[in-house]
Amino acid sequence: MIDLSQQICSACQVGAPLATQEQIEQFMPQLPEWKIIEVDGVKQLQRVYTFRNFVEAIAFSNKVGEIAELEGHHPAILTEWGRVTVSWWSHKIKGVHVNDFIMAARTDALLS
Amino acid sequence: MIDLSQQICSACQVGAPLATQEQIEQFMPQLPEWKIIEVDGVKQLQRVYTFRNFVEAIAFSNKVGEIAELEGHHPAILTEWGRVTVSWWSHKIKGVHVNDFIMAARTDALLS
Repeated sequence: MIDLSQQICSACQVGAPLATQEQIEQFMPQLPEWKIIEVDGVKQLQRVYTFRNFVEAIAFSNKVGEIAELEGHHPAILTEWGRVTVSWWSHKIKGVHVNDFIMAARTDALLS
Repeated sequence: MIDLSQQICSACQVGAPLATQEQIEQFMPQLPEWKIIEVDGVKQLQRVYTFRNFVEAIAFSNKVGEIAELEGHHPAILTEWGRVTVSWWSHKIKGVHVNDFIMAARTDALLS
């Protein structure tokens, strides 16, 4: 089995392929807390993380921001009291690329 | 005229009054970039701030987080590449309290 968190993100350009149904079925079991949502017709990978307070939430948001900036691939991070919602998708291809599954796995790895 | 950014937030408890229409009309001209939206029947004050990149966006989110934590009143902060959306409302009274206008004005003041 491919361990998602160990994969490398490739540059995602316009015209890059969306994740196939086969890839989605392969990867989702490794991301049990994530769901695929659709916003304005664009699929996104989304997870809600809960924390004990606002300070812990924003600290996590910053960690997510660090891996995003490092990879040059940026999610939407919604920070609230005790709660962070992270959404990964690939703007250039208006949907979910394999990179997004990789980043979701890396986001989970930040918790440990 | 009351300068919102100089006002002090009072503790907002269950049963505290929602902002009146008169207060809304008094305060909104001081917050020209903010709009009142309604999410699941709950009014919120919302503004989108734009930045040159992700790093500037998340730096601003952290500044908003600092004033929120200081005041013990926390907004929803949506951080994306080049963009931060801040939403202030009072969870306990399910709507917009005068405090939220004060915090919106203070959020704007972070830019200068």
